[in-house]
Amino acid sequence: MGAVGELSFIKNLRERSPVRNRRGLQLGIGDDCALLRVRPGWQIAVTTDLFLEGRHFRRESHRPESAGHRCLARGLSDLAAMGGATPIAAFLSLALPRTMLHSVPDQRWIAGFLQGFEALSRRFGAPLAGGDTGEAPGPEFSADVVLVGQIRPGRVLLRSGAKPGDGVWITGALGGAAAELEAMLARAETGRGPSRISGPQSFPEPRLAVGAALARLPGVATACLDVSDGLSTDLGHLCEESGVAVRIEAASLPLHPLAARLGPERALALALHGGEDYELLFTAGAEARLPKRLASVPLTRIGTVLKRERRRPILTVADATGRNQTLTPGGWEHLR
Amino acid sequence: MGAVGELSFIKNLRERSPVRNRRGLQLGIGDDCALLRVRPGWQIAVTTDLFLEGRHFRRESHRPESAGHRCLARGLSDLAAMGGATPIAAFLSLALPRTMLHSVPDQRWIAGFLQGFEALSRRFGAPLAGGDTGEAPGPEFSADVVLVGQIRPGRVLLRSGAKPGDGVWITGALGGAAAELEAMLARAETGRGPSRISGPQSFPEPRLAVGAALARLPGVATACLDVSDGLSTDLGHLCEESGVAVRIEAASLPLHPLAARLGPERALALALHGGEDYELLFTAGAEARLPKRLASVPLTRIGTVLKRERRRPILTVADATGRNQTLTPGGWEHLR
Repeated sequence: MGAVGELSFIKNLRERSPVRNRRGLQLGIGDDCALLRVRPGWQIAVTTDLFLEGRHFRRESHRPESAGHRCLARGLSDLAAMGGATPIAAFLSLALPRTMLHSVPDQRWIAGFLQGFEALSRRFGAPLAGGDTGEAPGPEFSADVVLVGQIRPGRVLLRSGAKPGDGVWITGALGGAAAELEAMLARAETGRGPSRISGPQSFPEPRLAVGAALARLPGVATACLDVSDGLSTDLGHLCEESGVAVRIEAASLPLHPLAARLGPERALALALHGGEDYELLFTAGAEARLPKRLASVPLTRIGTVLKRERRRPILTVADATGRNQTLTPGGWEHLR
Repeated sequence: MGAVGELSFIKNLRERSPVRNRRGLQLGIGDDCALLRVRPGWQIAVTTDLFLEGRHFRRESHRPESAGHRCLARGLSDLAAMGGATPIAAFLSLALPRTMLHSVPDQRWIAGFLQGFEALSRRFGAPLAGGDTGEAPGPEFSADVVLVGQIRPGRVLLRSGAKPGDGVWITGALGGAAAELEAMLARAETGRGPSRISGPQSFPEPRLAVGAALARLPGVATACLDVSDGLSTDLGHLCEESGVAVRIEAASLPLHPLAARLGPERALALALHGGEDYELLFTAGAEARLPKRLASVPLTRIGTVLKRERRRPILTVADATGRNQTLTPGGWEHLR
């Protein structure tokens, strides 16, 4: 990357980012490290997520503000899933193709990306505190986002605590992000369809308040993670970490309106495998009394945790007639 | 990336990484976030560094163990430059070309990369606590490394404290990493030359002990950063952050033997602009008495901090006859 291009880009980022804030950022962009402070006795939660062109977004179909929003939302959702850890700071590493720094539309795209990132960052108190930039080896844009948060040790929700007999719960609705993506791609190809949907694919809402509220309900949630790769894949992670099996009731899955309008079969497939909904998937003791909504977000019981048995598949889905079918993970997989 | 390929790769990483250690890692790979603990009252230092094929390493010339070592060393060196922050955990995001997961030599390369990473991580107590993996959009491998450390607030060394009259100092020697790279590239092209040099290009040594020892000397160091982009570029960063100018004495620059043997002119160019030496560049009050070595590493005074004046260039280098020449940053630039 040209020195001038990069320097002006960084100056721009730096001028827009706070050097320090009251919550925990002591020193932001500009030195060898950022410096943060955590509340005495609290734990630090750290998560990193790649955001790769062609895999996590498409420059030709995602608006830049949406891409920036989604990049940060991935990390905020991980903080939510630990029990609503309070964000302290975000870090953004960008590998930029050389061509993007010399093209005016591409520079506008980058500016839009940063606007989307910063709007969400301000809303959740996760100031941009550092990162890195480099010249991408190929023509694609890629990013890595790091979120640092803090959480009271007693409030941590892990993936590993689900027990046989627990209910399986989900926040919000499923399948909306995948349905919106289908519509976006169809429009990019055919030029037809609604030009701007601002749904859960474009602007997913990290469930930080729900995660925190859930962690404050004493003894209710036994395990929690976010649905980023797809319900079937993320249920697999839950079963793996907790050493259990899960049966889902297909009829109980809360379908997002964008998915529901595609018909029952397609909607079910998107709800099970679509991914990127960034809802919280959690388990709660059979006796736990859960409100209908938490932090204004609906909660739905979608299944039951079972004992893992050799001859039974780990994941099953029961259809309306009560017949069980094996549920095969159909989403994405990546390292946490 | 194929689910099976990625899963086995992650399992492998996870089995080799500690779930927790005594120093501060409470929860490692496998959940939505890693959980860390910091000593009461200490600050958290966070740095992220991209490690891109073709820019920070070349698969055809760097041995995989060296690439893994260098990837982590970039971040450890940033912790060193803050005043020797103690590492708590490292995070590694890898964007892997699909082809690399289906080729046996490429899988061996990745295994070697991780071995190099882990050997350095063990040595400095920076356990791999998480990260992400994804399919790279192109044929190149790229990584982003995050280091989290802790530091006592009174021991922080910033880039912004240099004052006119201060001496400018450097640890170790300069130009070795660039000289070794030249030899490696020449060998890759011609097949001639020494087959394995294990010098500062292949295995740079992060100066954590020197950074910590320097920060413990009361009131000595006024500013500090690491030489990653090249002395001339990093001096520019120092001057920018401290609002000062600097004059370097060419004759005082400690030349690495690999650079020195290329003759005085080339050696000087590599020492000034080569980069990747990961030595610490710091300033100290004119009256400060510095030992010849700190944590067994030689210290050399290489110049003087000057007041910034409109008509004078910010960076100058004085040759053996005392004549000043403008020093133009010739290294790399990237966001910290």
